[in-house]
Amino acid sequence: MSRYAIGVDFGTETGRAVLVDCSDGRELGVAVYPYRNGVIDERLPPPNEDVALEAEWALQDPADYVRTFQETIPRLLAETGVSPVEVIGLGIDFTSCTMLPTTADGTPLCLLEDFEREPHAWVKLWKHHAAQPEADRINEVATNRGEPWLRRYGGKISSEWFFAKALQILHEAPHVYRRAGRLIEAADWVVWQLTGVETRNSCTAGYKAMWSKRDGFPADGYFAALDPDFEHVIDQKMSRRIVPIGSRAGGLSERAASWTGLRAGTPVAVANVDAHVSAPAATVTAPGTMVIIMGTSNCHILLGAEPRTVEGMCGVVEDGVIPGLFGFEAGQSAVGDIFAWFAAHAVPKEYHEQARQRGVDTHRLLEDEAARRRPGESGLLALDWWNGNRSILVDADLSGLLLGLTLSTTAPDIYRSLIEATAYGTRVIVDAFVTAGVPVNAIVACGGLPERNKLLMQIYADVMGRDLVVAASKQTPALGSAMFGAVAAGSAGGGYDSIVEAAEHMAFLGHERFVPVPAHRAPYDRLFAEYVRLHDYFGRGGNTVMERLKSIARQASTA
Amino acid sequence: MSRYAIGVDFGTETGRAVLVDCSDGRELGVAVYPYRNGVIDERLPPPNEDVALEAEWALQDPADYVRTFQETIPRLLAETGVSPVEVIGLGIDFTSCTMLPTTADGTPLCLLEDFEREPHAWVKLWKHHAAQPEADRINEVATNRGEPWLRRYGGKISSEWFFAKALQILHEAPHVYRRAGRLIEAADWVVWQLTGVETRNSCTAGYKAMWSKRDGFPADGYFAALDPDFEHVIDQKMSRRIVPIGSRAGGLSERAASWTGLRAGTPVAVANVDAHVSAPAATVTAPGTMVIIMGTSNCHILLGAEPRTVEGMCGVVEDGVIPGLFGFEAGQSAVGDIFAWFAAHAVPKEYHEQARQRGVDTHRLLEDEAARRRPGESGLLALDWWNGNRSILVDADLSGLLLGLTLSTTAPDIYRSLIEATAYGTRVIVDAFVTAGVPVNAIVACGGLPERNKLLMQIYADVMGRDLVVAASKQTPALGSAMFGAVAAGSAGGGYDSIVEAAEHMAFLGHERFVPVPAHRAPYDRLFAEYVRLHDYFGRGGNTVMERLKSIARQASTA
Repeated sequence: MSRYAIGVDFGTETGRAVLVDCSDGRELGVAVYPYRNGVIDERLPPPNEDVALEAEWALQDPADYVRTFQETIPRLLAETGVSPVEVIGLGIDFTSCTMLPTTADGTPLCLLEDFEREPHAWVKLWKHHAAQPEADRINEVATNRGEPWLRRYGGKISSEWFFAKALQILHEAPHVYRRAGRLIEAADWVVWQLTGVETRNSCTAGYKAMWSKRDGFPADGYFAALDPDFEHVIDQKMSRRIVPIGSRAGGLSERAASWTGLRAGTPVAVANVDAHVSAPAATVTAPGTMVIIMGTSNCHILLGAEPRTVEGMCGVVEDGVIPGLFGFEAGQSAVGDIFAWFAAHAVPKEYHEQARQRGVDTHRLLEDEAARRRPGESGLLALDWWNGNRSILVDADLSGLLLGLTLSTTAPDIYRSLIEATAYGTRVIVDAFVTAGVPVNAIVACGGLPERNKLLMQIYADVMGRDLVVAASKQTPALGSAMFGAVAAGSAGGGYDSIVEAAEHMAFLGHERFVPVPAHRAPYDRLFAEYVRLHDYFGRGGNTVMERLKSIARQASTA
Repeated sequence: MSRYAIGVDFGTETGRAVLVDCSDGRELGVAVYPYRNGVIDERLPPPNEDVALEAEWALQDPADYVRTFQETIPRLLAETGVSPVEVIGLGIDFTSCTMLPTTADGTPLCLLEDFEREPHAWVKLWKHHAAQPEADRINEVATNRGEPWLRRYGGKISSEWFFAKALQILHEAPHVYRRAGRLIEAADWVVWQLTGVETRNSCTAGYKAMWSKRDGFPADGYFAALDPDFEHVIDQKMSRRIVPIGSRAGGLSERAASWTGLRAGTPVAVANVDAHVSAPAATVTAPGTMVIIMGTSNCHILLGAEPRTVEGMCGVVEDGVIPGLFGFEAGQSAVGDIFAWFAAHAVPKEYHEQARQRGVDTHRLLEDEAARRRPGESGLLALDWWNGNRSILVDADLSGLLLGLTLSTTAPDIYRSLIEATAYGTRVIVDAFVTAGVPVNAIVACGGLPERNKLLMQIYADVMGRDLVVAASKQTPALGSAMFGAVAAGSAGGGYDSIVEAAEHMAFLGHERFVPVPAHRAPYDRLFAEYVRLHDYFGRGGNTVMERLKSIARQASTA
């Protein structure tokens, strides 16, 4: 009998299910569900569309997650002709931190009539940025108390993370906070819906909720210092029982079986996060190889045998990526987003027209033109901080810089300098790991960008002086989730007993390899030295003009 | 009898003649001649179009200057109905340094059959930039010898100036140099053509040829140190007799009378330079008021009663602008050019389309959108060095910088930040004068930009905290030349005995006054402080990355 696993990847705009052959990783089919209510960032969905949201808010509708299961899995079975008895396991991954308040039995508060018009009752999406005051407080109190866990997160907690969002609910909607029996990651919530069992995974707990396998959560006294009513948030609203990823959360409930067409009892894996689940799907299950998930932003995942303090990491979590290892995460907060901004806001008409004439998109035309330039030829240098700097400076108030402009500068010149800047940013992160004693011997890329932009891959190879290979799958998160589904089944259930074993059979690298061009090494080393000098000047206190300009801008827009 | 004067302004692409009423400055008519051979920067004009020019070359055809007289003045007389007997004087102004080699009788070498295919025999236009090695040598030797005149020019001679161009002829085409009986500013050459008398004016001699009223030219020993064959360049190819501007060069020759339809003997003024002649045309004939000629670049003219050393000036020349006073000149090497670059290279399609729909040009649309922003609201800050920095840093290898970019930045945001950057650049220059003890009590603008861009004028007023007024004439150089024509006639000839007196009757300010908005002062003071900090860091040796990037770029493009 054939053995298949299904992975479901919950993204920002869509849910995507992939059906994978457990014997060889072949992806037989994919089904995508665009969320009915998408990203909710201006007003609540009907019938409550008269409720407007404040700036920086971003919500989702939990019903869209259930609909994802209902819409995609039956279609996947129908289109591939695979029988439910052949599906041995199911895994999911999610954006994070995406969290919601529910009743004690897991009902989202926003689905209760009393709370449906209350924005704080809805799912707070990862990019909900309205909890900055709470994040500031979390950081200030932690710094003052000398909380030891702070260093695991590069010294700073993001407003996107769990306790900032939870504290915002307490501050702004205490009745919602009180009514919430549970505060939970959406990742864990959907697994609860599938299995009827509440579990909490080690990946989101570790990377987004300051939990560690050795020390657990911060002490109640710390939470009390944030707000007296927050003291018992862990015991009252969450759980101290954290389950390592790679575990089985439970079997599919009768209800979820009816949603999906799968058999009740089908093994379901503990939830995971999109970036982190990509590592084994890109073949990486051991220290020494960095995975870079390249898309609108870059996420860097690296495994280590021991805990290390690496400057400006997003986090280091034991069991966070692969059980038994420390998973380091770093990030660049805008990459593809910068190129998209550039194409939308700074490219003159003629390039769009030329692209149309050649039947390619504007990015492709710019890439072709930029590829004709030699390293350094344009005289341009950029700092890739259009959306702040996540690693290694951890400063959201940094901003983009473009230097070397002349009357001869063209759009492809700038486009290339932006690609180069993101490559320098990656090299800074790689160097930080190596300096901290976490070896980086190889790099694997995955995500949307490596497929779309070959020039970018070549420039990354040239700038770092390292070979780059690309994961074979174009949908590594969903593949990774399917692999964890196979692990939930275990060898006894036709799957695998560990994610390492699953990766050996189900994950592959593509054939393409980007090798540094020897003649490009010297100019890029010189340009990288210039980048680092500007990086340190603007990012390490030499001139905090970027922060001051943001402060002036905030004053001007509220004046 | 009515009394009129004609001013002819020789620009980069056209020659323009204006007929002005001497009693009240009224401009009765204008005639423009677009040069047949324009700017010659790729190949010589027919029949020698097979001769290609090297990069950075820019030539003109002296026959175009004669044609300007032949084409414009008869048309002006015909269209205005003014009789030649009513034209009491003629003045001209020119771009500078624009120079040519001629025979001893003033015949341009490029008009000789033996030399017409020799690029060095043609007129070198002000923006001919191929003499940089010669300029470097001029500066190096002057610095090593401690030449005292160097400080009058901000410590650096430009490749655009007279001796760099002359030395390039000697180095690259010694036969042309030997054959040249004269090396002469085109400004003086056209006056020679009008009068039959060779004169050399104090303005170009002072600003472009290191001459001063008190010390004359640099010593022969200095020229010998540049090249032994250059030792006697002054006595062999030029003249030590420099005539102050405001003098009469001579009367119109019979030949020139036949070209123009004017009477032989009509008084002709000594030549002048477009920027400098604008000062009296903008009513400025005394210390304390700065004139800013705003166009593709900005030129700042200020008068002083005494010589002063002001940081980074283009030059200070006694009798250079108004006889009896010291004329200070400073400059910003790109202003309108930056906005033109931006509109051509970095503005997305939608703005061009919106502009078309509204029936305005793209600049106007950007200006309207940018005007809606508050100072500082965009969070952007730029350094306006797209074409290097002329004053006060005197460094052509500096380049443009844009800082504060985010994913929300729009084209109008950037456009406004570019305008602001040029305003900060002007404020730096004004501050340098004040610091050096040359008072700036008022500012008058003229040139093309003040008419076209009201937002720019308002931002300049806001950034400097000073009122700005605009000259009434839209063609101040030609008006100024006509005024000098009236002075050449003298009161005995129906004109005036000094340019001061001419200005009192013929030059006026417009009614528009740009007054600083009080609420904009504080944010612009803060932003200016940030500009100065970046200006000093990148411009005064804190980080010479801009120069290094240009050096890397030069290596890359020749690799």
